Amino acid sequence: MYSSEKVRKFTEKIFRAIGCSNRDARLAADVLVNADLRGVDSHGVARLAGYVRLFDHGRLNPKPEIKIIHQTPSTAVIDGDKGLGLVVAPFAMKIAIKKAQRAGSGWISVQNSNHFGIAGYHAMLASDQDMIGWAMTNAAPLVVPTFSTEKLLGTNPIALAVPAETQPAFVADFATTAVAYGKMEILQRKGLDAPLGWVQDEKGLPTANANAVKEGGGLLPLGGDREHGSHKGYGLGAIVDILSGVLSGANFGPWVPPFATAGFHGVAAEQVGKGTGHFLGAMRIDGFRSKEDFKKSMDVWINRFRSATHIDGEKVQIPGDQERNFMAERLANGIPLNEKVVESLEELGQRFKIRF
Amino acid sequence: MYSSEKVRKFTEKIFRAIGCSNRDARLAADVLVNADLRGVDSHGVARLAGYVRLFDHGRLNPKPEIKIIHQTPSTAVIDGDKGLGLVVAPFAMKIAIKKAQRAGSGWISVQNSNHFGIAGYHAMLASDQDMIGWAMTNAAPLVVPTFSTEKLLGTNPIALAVPAETQPAFVADFATTAVAYGKMEILQRKGLDAPLGWVQDEKGLPTANANAVKEGGGLLPLGGDREHGSHKGYGLGAIVDILSGVLSGANFGPWVPPFATAGFHGVAAEQVGKGTGHFLGAMRIDGFRSKEDFKKSMDVWINRFRSATHIDGEKVQIPGDQERNFMAERLANGIPLNEKVVESLEELGQRFKIRF
Repeated sequence: MYSSEKVRKFTEKIFRAIGCSNRDARLAADVLVNADLRGVDSHGVARLAGYVRLFDHGRLNPKPEIKIIHQTPSTAVIDGDKGLGLVVAPFAMKIAIKKAQRAGSGWISVQNSNHFGIAGYHAMLASDQDMIGWAMTNAAPLVVPTFSTEKLLGTNPIALAVPAETQPAFVADFATTAVAYGKMEILQRKGLDAPLGWVQDEKGLPTANANAVKEGGGLLPLGGDREHGSHKGYGLGAIVDILSGVLSGANFGPWVPPFATAGFHGVAAEQVGKGTGHFLGAMRIDGFRSKEDFKKSMDVWINRFRSATHIDGEKVQIPGDQERNFMAERLANGIPLNEKVVESLEELGQRFKIRF
Repeated sequence: MYSSEKVRKFTEKIFRAIGCSNRDARLAADVLVNADLRGVDSHGVARLAGYVRLFDHGRLNPKPEIKIIHQTPSTAVIDGDKGLGLVVAPFAMKIAIKKAQRAGSGWISVQNSNHFGIAGYHAMLASDQDMIGWAMTNAAPLVVPTFSTEKLLGTNPIALAVPAETQPAFVADFATTAVAYGKMEILQRKGLDAPLGWVQDEKGLPTANANAVKEGGGLLPLGGDREHGSHKGYGLGAIVDILSGVLSGANFGPWVPPFATAGFHGVAAEQVGKGTGHFLGAMRIDGFRSKEDFKKSMDVWINRFRSATHIDGEKVQIPGDQERNFMAERLANGIPLNEKVVESLEELGQRFKIRF
């Protein structure tokens, strides 16, 4: 177990070591550590070495000049200048919030960015301000549209954060696939099979092979197969891609550049836009209804769903409950880091002379 | 086969017969006939008798005074005055489009409405104006949240319509469940079983019983079970419910009043808001990026996805293709109406002395 403060300080120092400002390093570390605290281990400091590799390969600008390149009272496109998505997305969300303060809502499509960590973090920046926060991002292709044998979409997550009164916020944050790729990696490490309905093989047939995505297959959209609504999961992933990539002038579909994994850190020869794209939104609650009335209704909503009769041995949660439970536990007892992740952090420490 | 013009004229006359203005009757008929033309038979004139029942039971105001009750430059809440959702939703979308023209985007949450037909119709009102159109609605509870044995959500559809250049619009329009309830009704009529993953029984166990929803069970959210991401489908349905119901001051969750089916036309004794809720949005493309560049990129997107390598005997479609194929075929050859639907139309015809 590693205390979140220790992990946070180390992460901050690494981001400073590659040239980020103090402020950006603090923010980027906060996004990553929050992922670990909320139990989204695949999106936390496990990726720190990847961000450094992006920097090594000239794909990450540690001192970006993020700027608005076009706007209306409630919309804008932002150029992330190859900055850390961890920093670019909160910048964009701040502008969305400012626009919402004046015009009721603010919607920002972002081009020329990189992986932005967990979508929920950015959406919650708005719910903390009595707004409904939206966050989406496209990502490198791992997912097959319905009936396709080619991977054309990323796991393209959607997050929505909604404030309540006495209850904690409703925070939905999920990939538009049957399962996150991180779960496949866990099975790969353990040499286990995957349940049917998570992946297909290179011919588009159902398979339990946890390595299928690396062997010409692909992750299945939410729904799994056509009979169970995979065209809806594909539609959702496509919506995220269009709002994040096509609307901003970033890359989209199969052209979205990959995150820098140990094996691969280049980008496709052909590019149809700049970098990775995001889409952030903020809607002021009182642009619709009195804040007080709305939040009271949200409490009613949350209480009603939490108290639903349920399957024996289970209970009905509201989106965000699971992550909050992880957070309480990990703030108290520390973050369990996988051996490989610890190794990668120690290597970074040696390289930059920073003690982990 | 029934020609769409014949069906349209009859439908228009029925709406006039219950007191709708000529203009509203024409619009409402257009929404219903479009559903039939697009192959969404469950949402077309099959429901005409249901709308009339809503009127008979005092739940539908044929001459609503639809009005804005609160607004900012880019947001508003609209009171549908118990009007036809078929008319209230286009009214709301018009306001969204006007706001988008001035402020870049417009977002309307609607209270005190009724069933609005197919979501895609309303979203396309915006894509016809070089905007991205959004449409959602909540609906009476048929769906169980993950691990719940109570039905707390409607099939709560999401539609998004995006214009392209030479290609037709991208139009995603889907319920946030594994399958639409209409498909269960088809199985019921034929006495067939349902595939596992569509419904659960009253104890929350998987079942192939096509009557399960009527016997204490429920429709499953998109994803089916927890292992295949049903919490994501539940989260999506919840998002639609919150934006349509809680944000507008309409009913939400289990309190959303049912459409008037032959068996049931009352509302729950307890109400937490007014009528059914919708959420409509319009974002001006050129609030983000030049229209021309965006539409060219959409053509690239659509062509790339359509030309994906695919499973033998299938092909990769883009959202909206299937409905357009239906439309071309049915405009040419007519709409195939089910025997029961024809009977219900003939009964309406006798009652109102209008020849079908």
